[in-house]
Amino acid sequence: MHTEVDALVAALDIGGTKIAGALVDARGRLLARARRATPAQGDAADVMDAVAETLAELAGSAHWPRTVAVGIGSAGPVDAAAGTVSPVNVPAWRGFPLVAEVAARAGGRPVTLVGDGVAMAAAEHWQGAARGRANALGMVVSTGVGGGLVLDGRLHPGPTGNAGHIGHITVDLDGDPCPCGGRGCVERIASGPNIAARARESGWRPGPDGEVSAAAVAASARAGDEAALASFARAAQALAAGIAATATLVEIEIAVIGGGVAGAGEVLFGPLRQRLADYATLSFTGGVEIVPARLGSDAGLVGAAAAAAQASGLWG
Amino acid sequence: MHTEVDALVAALDIGGTKIAGALVDARGRLLARARRATPAQGDAADVMDAVAETLAELAGSAHWPRTVAVGIGSAGPVDAAAGTVSPVNVPAWRGFPLVAEVAARAGGRPVTLVGDGVAMAAAEHWQGAARGRANALGMVVSTGVGGGLVLDGRLHPGPTGNAGHIGHITVDLDGDPCPCGGRGCVERIASGPNIAARARESGWRPGPDGEVSAAAVAASARAGDEAALASFARAAQALAAGIAATATLVEIEIAVIGGGVAGAGEVLFGPLRQRLADYATLSFTGGVEIVPARLGSDAGLVGAAAAAAQASGLWG
Repeated sequence: MHTEVDALVAALDIGGTKIAGALVDARGRLLARARRATPAQGDAADVMDAVAETLAELAGSAHWPRTVAVGIGSAGPVDAAAGTVSPVNVPAWRGFPLVAEVAARAGGRPVTLVGDGVAMAAAEHWQGAARGRANALGMVVSTGVGGGLVLDGRLHPGPTGNAGHIGHITVDLDGDPCPCGGRGCVERIASGPNIAARARESGWRPGPDGEVSAAAVAASARAGDEAALASFARAAQALAAGIAATATLVEIEIAVIGGGVAGAGEVLFGPLRQRLADYATLSFTGGVEIVPARLGSDAGLVGAAAAAAQASGLWG
Repeated sequence: MHTEVDALVAALDIGGTKIAGALVDARGRLLARARRATPAQGDAADVMDAVAETLAELAGSAHWPRTVAVGIGSAGPVDAAAGTVSPVNVPAWRGFPLVAEVAARAGGRPVTLVGDGVAMAAAEHWQGAARGRANALGMVVSTGVGGGLVLDGRLHPGPTGNAGHIGHITVDLDGDPCPCGGRGCVERIASGPNIAARARESGWRPGPDGEVSAAAVAASARAGDEAALASFARAAQALAAGIAATATLVEIEIAVIGGGVAGAGEVLFGPLRQRLADYATLSFTGGVEIVPARLGSDAGLVGAAAAAAQASGLWG
């Protein structure tokens, strides 16, 4: 028998381009890894086969016998209560019973499902920039904007595993329609593609390589391009309003921001910290820190393991 | 010795016009009451004297020996971590050490402090419209807009006792300046005075009694006045965006709305339920119910007792 501190969690990180897996120990180390491309245009069984192969590869590891639980972080929407996922970028999976399918291949181990934003927040709280903080928001600013919450020292996934979905709170109630069906969402203003599109509309032009992306806009902003600077300033304003709303609603002390757009560095973080003061005005929201994420592409795996450990009461 | 189920909590509800007190039992009944006007223009000691008299009157009750804890719901801002209050309408109290002052008069009983919005949410969860709901938002829409959250079946006051402060989340990031220092806050659009002011600006005129209030605007709206209807529709839109943001961030299943403006009934609730669908677009936010509060003016006392009971682990 393994003792609890020796126990491992099998983590799965399921996205539109790849399915990653790892066995994670009590210190957040990845002891074995597996990875498959997501057959995003395949049928439901094709995608599940890729998950099953990833899991089988982990099960072939010498560490597998110590594995006591499975954690899944998936692109959303997810429904942890029903055990289903409907990732936007995996059309064949709509209400797909991922938890039951994984459980059937996990030898009786309990399976925990959370959204990928929740997993990122769990990872940053466990091993990253929000370590030791009782109340924190983790955010991913990338093609979309996602997030997750830690409240009173514990991950708060919510009943369906989607809590902390800051990308789709409205900060501009008369604003532009968002693909989610809402209006003026944080994501509609602050995601990478929206930063690039808004810069173009204001006269920014891509460089010789023709790249149209938030990273290209960030490079122009660093060189002083006004349209580029203005587009990042607007994104920062929306993120500031969203982070302030979160602090006002649940009292967070820190917001950790990862994802590709966060790679813009001070072009984003400078105006963001500045604008936060415009919206986080109440005494109890005044001290919110904004910091870059510390974990990189493994955050989804580390966080899925953390969520499963919390659900199973592992590692104290 | 009393058994736990016989234990009572002394509740205090501290506002700009009155200080109310009661001894509350395990079923939410108010067994003894006391009340003083708030000497809002007096000095700090004057206001504390009124609190002390209220508490002394409760201590004179035959039920006092069964009282094991004290709960305070106060107009904000409050700082539960520091034990201080700074009610906007009580200028003499800025960072006033209310918890220590009450504890000194409470014979060693533990004292719990929360904001009045948190207390209202606690009351509706314990004895009102959110009973049995694991995840709920309680709101007061009145001169201001306040609120509180129940998450995973428990009150979530946050470290400083202010969580759920929905009135000051920004739903219009370029909107009108709010007295809080922010911009486009829910309260700036949906509070009673703002409903009345916006109606007037759009051509609404008070009736023969000259009353300018949300209630008067509601009466005109019921009679078909377009400016009155439009002002309530705008308030409903802001409330819908705020409630949707809350559901998106923490996953609530119900929003309970009390306060004077909620007295407008369908003039408010009709457009509010309609607009909610415009902003609560994600699968996990689609089912949020919006209902009127059930408890009236005693909500603050009942909720202060509930908060103290939770903090002391009373009544299971």
